[in-house]
Amino acid sequence: MPALKPATRAQLMGVSTATLCTALFKRGLRHQFIQDVRPLRADLPNMVGEAYTLRYMPAREDLNSIEVFKNREHPQRKAVEECPSGAVFVIDSRKDARAASAGNILVTRLMKRGVAGIVTDGGFRDSPEMARLPFPVYHQRPAAPTNLTVHQAIDINVPIGCGDAPVFPGDVVVGDAEGVVVIPAHLADEVAAEAVEMTAFEDFVQERVLAGQSILGLYPPTDEANRVAFDAWRKAHGR
Amino acid sequence: MPALKPATRAQLMGVSTATLCTALFKRGLRHQFIQDVRPLRADLPNMVGEAYTLRYMPAREDLNSIEVFKNREHPQRKAVEECPSGAVFVIDSRKDARAASAGNILVTRLMKRGVAGIVTDGGFRDSPEMARLPFPVYHQRPAAPTNLTVHQAIDINVPIGCGDAPVFPGDVVVGDAEGVVVIPAHLADEVAAEAVEMTAFEDFVQERVLAGQSILGLYPPTDEANRVAFDAWRKAHGR
Amino acid sequence: MPALKPATRAQLMGVSTATLCTALFKRGLRHQFIQDVRPLRADLPNMVGEAYTLRYMPAREDLNSIEVFKNREHPQRKAVEECPSGAVFVIDSRKDARAASAGNILVTRLMKRGVAGIVTDGGFRDSPEMARLPFPVYHQRPAAPTNLTVHQAIDINVPIGCGDAPVFPGDVVVGDAEGVVVIPAHLADEVAAEAVEMTAFEDFVQERVLAGQSILGLYPPTDEANRVAFDAWRKAHGR
Amino acid sequence: MPALKPATRAQLMGVSTATLCTALFKRGLRHQFIQDVRPLRADLPNMVGEAYTLRYMPAREDLNSIEVFKNREHPQRKAVEECPSGAVFVIDSRKDARAASAGNILVTRLMKRGVAGIVTDGGFRDSPEMARLPFPVYHQRPAAPTNLTVHQAIDINVPIGCGDAPVFPGDVVVGDAEGVVVIPAHLADEVAAEAVEMTAFEDFVQERVLAGQSILGLYPPTDEANRVAFDAWRKAHGR
Amino acid sequence: MPALKPATRAQLMGVSTATLCTALFKRGLRHQFIQDVRPLRADLPNMVGEAYTLRYMPAREDLNSIEVFKNREHPQRKAVEECPSGAVFVIDSRKDARAASAGNILVTRLMKRGVAGIVTDGGFRDSPEMARLPFPVYHQRPAAPTNLTVHQAIDINVPIGCGDAPVFPGDVVVGDAEGVVVIPAHLADEVAAEAVEMTAFEDFVQERVLAGQSILGLYPPTDEANRVAFDAWRKAHGR
Amino acid sequence: MPALKPATRAQLMGVSTATLCTALFKRGLRHQFIQDVRPLRADLPNMVGEAYTLRYMPAREDLNSIEVFKNREHPQRKAVEECPSGAVFVIDSRKDARAASAGNILVTRLMKRGVAGIVTDGGFRDSPEMARLPFPVYHQRPAAPTNLTVHQAIDINVPIGCGDAPVFPGDVVVGDAEGVVVIPAHLADEVAAEAVEMTAFEDFVQERVLAGQSILGLYPPTDEANRVAFDAWRKAHGR
Repeated sequence: MPALKPATRAQLMGVSTATLCTALFKRGLRHQFIQDVRPLRADLPNMVGEAYTLRYMPAREDLNSIEVFKNREHPQRKAVEECPSGAVFVIDSRKDARAASAGNILVTRLMKRGVAGIVTDGGFRDSPEMARLPFPVYHQRPAAPTNLTVHQAIDINVPIGCGDAPVFPGDVVVGDAEGVVVIPAHLADEVAAEAVEMTAFEDFVQERVLAGQSILGLYPPTDEANRVAFDAWRKAHGR
Repeated sequence: MPALKPATRAQLMGVSTATLCTALFKRGLRHQFIQDVRPLRADLPNMVGEAYTLRYMPAREDLNSIEVFKNREHPQRKAVEECPSGAVFVIDSRKDARAASAGNILVTRLMKRGVAGIVTDGGFRDSPEMARLPFPVYHQRPAAPTNLTVHQAIDINVPIGCGDAPVFPGDVVVGDAEGVVVIPAHLADEVAAEAVEMTAFEDFVQERVLAGQSILGLYPPTDEANRVAFDAWRKAHGR
Repeated sequence: MPALKPATRAQLMGVSTATLCTALFKRGLRHQFIQDVRPLRADLPNMVGEAYTLRYMPAREDLNSIEVFKNREHPQRKAVEECPSGAVFVIDSRKDARAASAGNILVTRLMKRGVAGIVTDGGFRDSPEMARLPFPVYHQRPAAPTNLTVHQAIDINVPIGCGDAPVFPGDVVVGDAEGVVVIPAHLADEVAAEAVEMTAFEDFVQERVLAGQSILGLYPPTDEANRVAFDAWRKAHGR
Repeated sequence: MPALKPATRAQLMGVSTATLCTALFKRGLRHQFIQDVRPLRADLPNMVGEAYTLRYMPAREDLNSIEVFKNREHPQRKAVEECPSGAVFVIDSRKDARAASAGNILVTRLMKRGVAGIVTDGGFRDSPEMARLPFPVYHQRPAAPTNLTVHQAIDINVPIGCGDAPVFPGDVVVGDAEGVVVIPAHLADEVAAEAVEMTAFEDFVQERVLAGQSILGLYPPTDEANRVAFDAWRKAHGR
Repeated sequence: MPALKPATRAQLMGVSTATLCTALFKRGLRHQFIQDVRPLRADLPNMVGEAYTLRYMPAREDLNSIEVFKNREHPQRKAVEECPSGAVFVIDSRKDARAASAGNILVTRLMKRGVAGIVTDGGFRDSPEMARLPFPVYHQRPAAPTNLTVHQAIDINVPIGCGDAPVFPGDVVVGDAEGVVVIPAHLADEVAAEAVEMTAFEDFVQERVLAGQSILGLYPPTDEANRVAFDAWRKAHGR
Repeated sequence: MPALKPATRAQLMGVSTATLCTALFKRGLRHQFIQDVRPLRADLPNMVGEAYTLRYMPAREDLNSIEVFKNREHPQRKAVEECPSGAVFVIDSRKDARAASAGNILVTRLMKRGVAGIVTDGGFRDSPEMARLPFPVYHQRPAAPTNLTVHQAIDINVPIGCGDAPVFPGDVVVGDAEGVVVIPAHLADEVAAEAVEMTAFEDFVQERVLAGQSILGLYPPTDEANRVAFDAWRKAHGR
């Protein structure tokens, strides 16, 4: 699995999850958007990083007393200390937000360790405090109960599902104010490059539409005149 | 189907969807509120206009490659260019928000064409950009994947369901910060007029309640004294 | 059932629902968080009070015309006038948000009467206006239709379910920006006291984590050094 | 509340829930069919009786140990011994089938006491054994866990919701192989009589349709010839 | 759109929906199985025919009194009299089984008219009687309330969704005891032919597995020996 | 992890999942019943065996063409050939029945290999054929599409969730006509023994109830007379 190149990361900081989904759709990938998660705050730069995963299973009561966290090898705590800087921490919570996937202290620790962001298809607790961190956090909805109530952390950095999307360790995860998309590792470079191109074109189109032009022949640019205009626009804008 | 009168439109700009729902309830109509949609921004004036509809069906993969939009007759694109100024564009997305109903460029085009607003019971993509437009947009939740992923536009301006509400072309659609209600075309004038009356009364009641009065005998005004007070209030406030 | 002591109320004003859920979890109570409700505004102090309940059943059309509110004994209106000052008004709406549990006038009346807040596992109407009141309101999502559309108020101050949590009249209800938790009446004092202790410790931990310390040995404090440091921190901060 | 007359009961033994729903629909009642319940066996005569209700709320763990059943006043056990002969036992389980509403022993006891049948919008345990009893039982799906796992019996013979239908004690409950319908007590006689009439007509229509006749003009009988034929058919069949 | 050839129909009578789904999957079609419907009886031959569709929208109360069926042009009744012999009648009920899609009389009429079967993604009423007809009927679950309660028939023979599958008029619909699959019209011949081949191979494999052979190298037949054995088996069985 | 003793297996063949759930409830385990699965046939002896698990994640299209099964190391095929005789094959399908978890050929192979039964919280394809095998099969509902449509087999014999129950390899899985329960391995012997005792008592109670006795004082046996009678009954019946 190739490491995420700095240039690719930089490109992904400047494109939207919507554009990335279209680039993936063109490659036959229709399920890479994590369904039904949202950011705690909408004013942060994109979240970009390689997926580092944590898998939860349903909690069995006798194995999940509050004492379990005294074990330094508990997978949830271990994962928080081992997740690489620059990675995105992705949790498979089986779409169950009745109890938390994690709370503010662990998320703050991830932030301090240089992790790029965190995603669960369940919910986080301490979400009001978490929303004040300059750190990208995505979940389904707030969930005050401790994770032990319904979740047991069981596996670190294995392939998982998150919000019905397949996530393999090392996949490139991108989040914006709309949501989170998962790019298969081997496609990251080409998808990022294509998304940059698409973004330039969509910026041009949006400018034209705001100026009053019809979308017919423009989006997509079936009219030659629009393709010519776009070429001129790119030159003029250095894109 | 009668056209929406300017006076009725003006009245509907000043009443809430909650009040309109009550007026419809009194007429035996219980399902006119579009369920589970919300505005992208809560600081706009009411959205009011006649319904212009677009129906989606589940996408069949071989009919929904990215190339389909090159066809100028594609119903989604055609509808965006043909929706009348002043109308509300309502999409039946079968309550499925796994993929977008539309994105920012099409919505911007509708805004530029003078359309009054847009509603889907699915989701929109580019929702962060869309939320910056001075244009009423209602959906279930953000959805970055292109509509082709799960939707195929199939019919323009036919009767549809949207969020479990029946919507006929020409029905009068009203949205506020709470949600969207659909008024059958033939009832628009009388319902608007009644809602204006109800709003005056509710403003009076709210003022009284803020002043410390009990709701018993006041809301509804079974006490004669309250009816008298309301008459005086209306005169004093010119309503 | 013991009354809520002022000192306990004061303690509960300063702790989070997340911390309270953990204290309840330690006592074997896993279902006290009201699922899938959220505050209309996130900038208010905690909501704390004893539960006063209203139970809704599905509406039968012939019993729920708009005229029913002329009856001063209608349970919804009666409850609004009888709910004690300082209590939290909790509605069992069977998790059904297709129609409102109540609207702005009734909620304003509760606020004026000194009630501490209101919760439904359904939805409220007039939610935009309600969100401007300095009053804690929690629901699932906005619902413009009048409650008569799907709900009939049937019982006052009986044990209910709200968002899958059991609520007995007199239980102590606490809400923050994350959600709402229900503390059994007989546990309120001890849970509040424990939560204050836990909050001090978590504030200490958060400070350390922000300073770069690992969570291992700190959270929970299995390292003696961290327990010593916490003791010092408490003295220094007077907590 | 009038008692169910033997003649009415007899009529209701011979009509279907579908026909009863139509008679109720004509009277403006659209929500009297209990949604998403099914009979354990499809080969029994209709279940007919007045509703006797039991209300469950979510279980709080400390109040629901296995020991609670030692209390002879436990509402579930009390209700089973007090439900009148000829009544239908209806349980509000909040549509939650994760744990049982009751098991085979209690249901057998109800059968022995002459109760007419039992309905829950949750699930029953011991359902394979129960399915061998000559006794009408309706639920959502089997549920082996004891009711204490998620349910606490809290109220006997109060108005409840069951499968989204309103059920008042004394309402007349009818079940067939399709499901269960709730007839408001004061309408039982007239609805039963009308249903008998409708059944005769539908039997006539079905005979005609099986003989090859078109439904146009026949169902409903807008053609005079069909009304004449029906009159003759009734005389011939003594109905 | 090509008509369904008798030879293709005959082939489709002898293959399973599971095998057809695999043949469609190989062609990139992943959503042709109608989700969450089941047959009323499991002992009938396959249902095979071209789709003839009926579209329902949410019912508006003032347009859906019981009187509407007196109109011979009512789309539901018209469709029942016009659906071609040999076709499958497919109803888009928006997956809503709270009220019926149709009842026994209409279904009997379809049977008498030579229609091949009926499918809804909602529910049928009179389902116990319907289950005694020698006629393929597929639905989600029984629903006694008349369709007018939540449905209004609005369009005949347009493209629809049914159980999340896209259905175009003329598509070839096949049902067995497992469920219903929709084959795009232009693929019917080749998919039927391929399914016949696959069925022969799977019958061979099943025989071998019952005889104790491992699936490795056999299913799929990556071992040459198994391919040779299959050729011999085909000759021996004349398939 | 202790192996399942033959004597324990024999005991578990004679008790119900309902009784086992109660024995687990007494030990604080409330989530061991696999929710929303049902047997394909209700006339088989109990299914009893140690859990052998397979985990599915969401399918990524480029990794799940029909060709993948040519790989003898594909986890689904490998698991089928490696599952021990006497074990129960349990699949985590994330409660998604839109596509199959497996089909008839693989299930037949498991049967031939001496496996005790199979459970998925998704669906099986070829379910009509599978229902004719003398082999216990439990699923949510039939699903004709190949598993590759939405599932990718990713892990063998790891801890999983199945129908919201935690399942560890080696746990003892018991199925009857009602559903499936998961007994933690270390509790199997004591739970089996207790369930045998409870079954004897419940058989005695059922006999008494059928003879007309009240449940009060009998179930539970708070009356000394009933305890004496039970002792006599046990002696008389040799249990």
